[in-house]
Amino acid sequence: MILVLKPNASREQTDELLSRIKSMGLDVHISVGVDTTIVGLVGDTTKLDRLYFSSYDIVENVLKVTEPFKQANRMFHPNDTVIDVNGRKIGEGHFVIISGPCSVESEEQIVTIAKELKKAGASFLRGGAYKPRTSPYSFQGLGLEGLEFLKIARDETGLPIVSEIMSTDVLDRFVEDVDIIQVGARNMQNFVMLRELGRINKPVLLKRGLSATLEEWLMSAEYILNEGNEKVILCERGIRTFETYTRNTLDLSAIPAIKKLSHLPVIVDPSHATGKAWMVGTMSKAALVSGADGVIIEVHNNPRCALSDGEQSITPSEYSSIIPKIKMLAKIEEKQLEV
Amino acid sequence: MILVLKPNASREQTDELLSRIKSMGLDVHISVGVDTTIVGLVGDTTKLDRLYFSSYDIVENVLKVTEPFKQANRMFHPNDTVIDVNGRKIGEGHFVIISGPCSVESEEQIVTIAKELKKAGASFLRGGAYKPRTSPYSFQGLGLEGLEFLKIARDETGLPIVSEIMSTDVLDRFVEDVDIIQVGARNMQNFVMLRELGRINKPVLLKRGLSATLEEWLMSAEYILNEGNEKVILCERGIRTFETYTRNTLDLSAIPAIKKLSHLPVIVDPSHATGKAWMVGTMSKAALVSGADGVIIEVHNNPRCALSDGEQSITPSEYSSIIPKIKMLAKIEEKQLEV
Amino acid sequence: MILVLKPNASREQTDELLSRIKSMGLDVHISVGVDTTIVGLVGDTTKLDRLYFSSYDIVENVLKVTEPFKQANRMFHPNDTVIDVNGRKIGEGHFVIISGPCSVESEEQIVTIAKELKKAGASFLRGGAYKPRTSPYSFQGLGLEGLEFLKIARDETGLPIVSEIMSTDVLDRFVEDVDIIQVGARNMQNFVMLRELGRINKPVLLKRGLSATLEEWLMSAEYILNEGNEKVILCERGIRTFETYTRNTLDLSAIPAIKKLSHLPVIVDPSHATGKAWMVGTMSKAALVSGADGVIIEVHNNPRCALSDGEQSITPSEYSSIIPKIKMLAKIEEKQLEV
Amino acid sequence: MILVLKPNASREQTDELLSRIKSMGLDVHISVGVDTTIVGLVGDTTKLDRLYFSSYDIVENVLKVTEPFKQANRMFHPNDTVIDVNGRKIGEGHFVIISGPCSVESEEQIVTIAKELKKAGASFLRGGAYKPRTSPYSFQGLGLEGLEFLKIARDETGLPIVSEIMSTDVLDRFVEDVDIIQVGARNMQNFVMLRELGRINKPVLLKRGLSATLEEWLMSAEYILNEGNEKVILCERGIRTFETYTRNTLDLSAIPAIKKLSHLPVIVDPSHATGKAWMVGTMSKAALVSGADGVIIEVHNNPRCALSDGEQSITPSEYSSIIPKIKMLAKIEEKQLEV
Repeated sequence: MILVLKPNASREQTDELLSRIKSMGLDVHISVGVDTTIVGLVGDTTKLDRLYFSSYDIVENVLKVTEPFKQANRMFHPNDTVIDVNGRKIGEGHFVIISGPCSVESEEQIVTIAKELKKAGASFLRGGAYKPRTSPYSFQGLGLEGLEFLKIARDETGLPIVSEIMSTDVLDRFVEDVDIIQVGARNMQNFVMLRELGRINKPVLLKRGLSATLEEWLMSAEYILNEGNEKVILCERGIRTFETYTRNTLDLSAIPAIKKLSHLPVIVDPSHATGKAWMVGTMSKAALVSGADGVIIEVHNNPRCALSDGEQSITPSEYSSIIPKIKMLAKIEEKQLEV
Repeated sequence: MILVLKPNASREQTDELLSRIKSMGLDVHISVGVDTTIVGLVGDTTKLDRLYFSSYDIVENVLKVTEPFKQANRMFHPNDTVIDVNGRKIGEGHFVIISGPCSVESEEQIVTIAKELKKAGASFLRGGAYKPRTSPYSFQGLGLEGLEFLKIARDETGLPIVSEIMSTDVLDRFVEDVDIIQVGARNMQNFVMLRELGRINKPVLLKRGLSATLEEWLMSAEYILNEGNEKVILCERGIRTFETYTRNTLDLSAIPAIKKLSHLPVIVDPSHATGKAWMVGTMSKAALVSGADGVIIEVHNNPRCALSDGEQSITPSEYSSIIPKIKMLAKIEEKQLEV
Repeated sequence: MILVLKPNASREQTDELLSRIKSMGLDVHISVGVDTTIVGLVGDTTKLDRLYFSSYDIVENVLKVTEPFKQANRMFHPNDTVIDVNGRKIGEGHFVIISGPCSVESEEQIVTIAKELKKAGASFLRGGAYKPRTSPYSFQGLGLEGLEFLKIARDETGLPIVSEIMSTDVLDRFVEDVDIIQVGARNMQNFVMLRELGRINKPVLLKRGLSATLEEWLMSAEYILNEGNEKVILCERGIRTFETYTRNTLDLSAIPAIKKLSHLPVIVDPSHATGKAWMVGTMSKAALVSGADGVIIEVHNNPRCALSDGEQSITPSEYSSIIPKIKMLAKIEEKQLEV
Repeated sequence: MILVLKPNASREQTDELLSRIKSMGLDVHISVGVDTTIVGLVGDTTKLDRLYFSSYDIVENVLKVTEPFKQANRMFHPNDTVIDVNGRKIGEGHFVIISGPCSVESEEQIVTIAKELKKAGASFLRGGAYKPRTSPYSFQGLGLEGLEFLKIARDETGLPIVSEIMSTDVLDRFVEDVDIIQVGARNMQNFVMLRELGRINKPVLLKRGLSATLEEWLMSAEYILNEGNEKVILCERGIRTFETYTRNTLDLSAIPAIKKLSHLPVIVDPSHATGKAWMVGTMSKAALVSGADGVIIEVHNNPRCALSDGEQSITPSEYSSIIPKIKMLAKIEEKQLEV
């Protein structure tokens, strides 16, 4: 951490600041410039709040030198994390396709879709039992009954299941029933939930918040990792910008960025990011080429009648036409498809 | 709701769509233009998902005509909502000043600050017992012990207390101990929590999410109102934009906007919005003039040593110099100060 | 265009509005709903200002039905526009690689780089003679001398040249000397310049403004097309968002979006979008897969000493390693590489 | 400027870097930490490009210590700049009200409005002769004829005039005819134009670009100041964010920010920022209280028929009711109204 002092800092004020820093067990390097004096803090400043020093009158600016995430940081964990879920691998050259409807609507619906996905080629089945909806008047999901239907679909197809948790009240059920627990964008900074998810032994798919920086996202992963659960999968799903043509703006450069900053696997959800079914195939391919470890594709047997997010769902037949293209690119990019 | 059909919509497709609409109990008005056909849906479309129709191939565009929030809507509730908390009124010309430290750090700290605030003029004491922090390594608050200290400070000063809830595990304690329960920006769309807050009889201060539109914010209020709790106070606390000079961008035009759209009281938090203590006085005054029903001002007896958010906290003596200016403006603006 | 009237609109006010609309030569379709009356305007509303009607007291909302761009609109021009520049084609399955240094710094520099690019495979040479710089103290380009050096490099390699114009004072020289004239992001809405560029017979590369919506971008293209110049190439170069890890946020879903909305070719500039040399290769590939008609890649023989934008420039040797990967993907995607 | 070196920087690489820095006439202070080595550059680094050093492999990060603007910087010019236009002062406690229609439409229109504004209380008359419009099909202004009408209105009322320039082709006419030359948001980084405006002796009103940071805005002012024209007035007019309820998001905290960073006067345009006539009065008051040196208020005698921006224009009678409120607040805030 570096402190830039104001030009008019007096000797007394500076000395007071320096002795405060030293009392924290840190060393100090001082560099006196033409207009400014710069103080470098030497030692473990990880747990130091940047804001602490900015409240000093004589401090013009506080500059961070190191990233605040440790366990998610590739610097301290150079090799890719690979997560094995029922024999399917995520990370380090393995590419997964997670697909299914936004909401589980009935046993018949989810089993039918699951079978079609299985046939076309899918790594995981996703389906929402609990749905975060902007409006209290929209369909909120079938709840635990939805989980039961998902389990039936898993039994029938062998596809492991991914579903979103909205409250830790039902955490035990999720741990028991689900293969990957998804944390939605709106709960990315629900820190109480993140900590609880850090104490279980189950992969967590952590979606990026609508306006979360890469650093904030990794810090949320850090909450989970720090409690002991190392199975964190990141998921880019679009950020909120001024552009409204797409529902959100898919930030594909986040993929190489995360790969550089962290060892965690990262996948992409083009369905939620774009909100447009006709873009999903193209952006799935772009995600793969950007270095993603997988995609989440929303599929509904009857998008028109979907109880949520119909606009962004593709049909099983559209899905079937996308998979071969992904396979072809996976080969070129030397990714192993886990289907 | 209005559907704009594609130029090439066939007669059969159109008829199928129209009969589907009618089967939902809605009436239909059709307007055939040069390039486009427009279908107006007549009836109660509140619970209709906009996305439902956009999945039809022949539908070019779906336009919403009415706002999706009902109970928060001024159209159906023309008079301002006034919330009475221990005799202090919020809304309809009453102006409140909520102040205190970001975190409760000790009994002595919170009692000392509370007394100074009481003396200078404050309506409510706020203090964080639970703190949402980006980093798992930052101070997370004293928890229930912090609530105890807040109660002592209330006993000593008579100031009602405001504190943030981060999980419904402790909801009973909050209902018992706290006078206004705050929902932080990060939990604005924690719908499970919102619904539970709708079932209690205690005012809820709902902060705007970092990237929430006005409509999404009001829809979150709707979750609470819809369960029966009518005591919702909105709080603008800055939105995330490209500008980084201030921590967030304080959106003061949201105040007249909310006043037009809704009957709920709305206050402003200039401390979190700007992240700069030296701006707080100025932006508090601007908030009042914009039509806000109150402000939240962060005050710490020793900002430099604050365990969180020191940079944006003002000292009690700075606070004392701001209050008279707010009073003067309140008089001009014919607001009654609740201190 | 659709007008939504307020619930309390009186008969007289409505009649006044309707007769005003009819006096404009437009027809009217009225649909009376439960809460609202909807007025559909039938006829050519292209040149009608949406804002005109919103100033009527009884108008709650004005909804646009058709896009405001006509000549750039795929609806009225279903086939892809293909632009031929000295035998190299842009658009409709032809993929171009435009590369070179951000600034032309000397004859030797630009000729050396041009030769290396030619050898590695490039469709066009780009180089800045005039540089828009945030700071008046930064290097502003060599001006007309830079154009001369570019011409020498073209003579030596046969690569057509692309360069940015910053003022129409030098338009004649650009028309004479340059093969594609680039309009930078900052000048995307310099309408006086756009109109002048519409009156020449030379391809124009129109970069998307930092915070321009797709519609605004196409409207700027419309300024050029409307004056008669049909050779417009769009270029996505990142938009400004809250995320600061990358210099801007590359909006790759803009590519399929533009392809749907317009017939104009669209290319991608990953160098400026990300600001990071190590991302350029990956994001170039993602651009191709997203459907782009080309990329602009910044290459400098000595990025460390580049007088501008060194951080985002790759070396000729890095460039040489990227080209084969692009070629491989181009084959898979059935794009014809114009090198 | 501070360079943070990578942990694995070798001795040779570091020495090479240091000798390069010294060859630039700069001194160096080195601070060796646990993980990182920090190099402080001492000397005049104003003209040094931050990006230059980031291209060195061993440089992890480059941190700026001082702001890049010099002549606009309050640090080097502690007193407020006051600009005198025909006896009306702008800056340092003087508050101006600039008002008029977005576009000059006819002699009668502008003279009528000017007289009403004069009567109600206005410091300056603004009116657009040249209008930047998103669409080439929208009304583009009367051009030089519009300037003539503005001059007639000035003659009749004594109000000095403010008008926007869109191209330096007509700069001579603007210098001769207009009292303050406005640079619109879209031209904030039209550097060629800024430089030319720096060579005249006439006040320039520089609007903030739609997505310009405070620093970029001040750097654009620097372009003008650096050529010798010290009469620059800044104008906040809303920034582009995700929120679409208002046309843009008025960034009022930019006002105290600019006052801290710079000595230049800064005014606010609530009409363009909000795009809603009914917000203009409230946000004008908030602007004054935020510390602005003036406001621009759009007024049209018949907003409904305005050829541009009718939605945001208020009527002369609404204007008349706002002025007394501004006067009252100006008194409280000890601002001298220049009307």
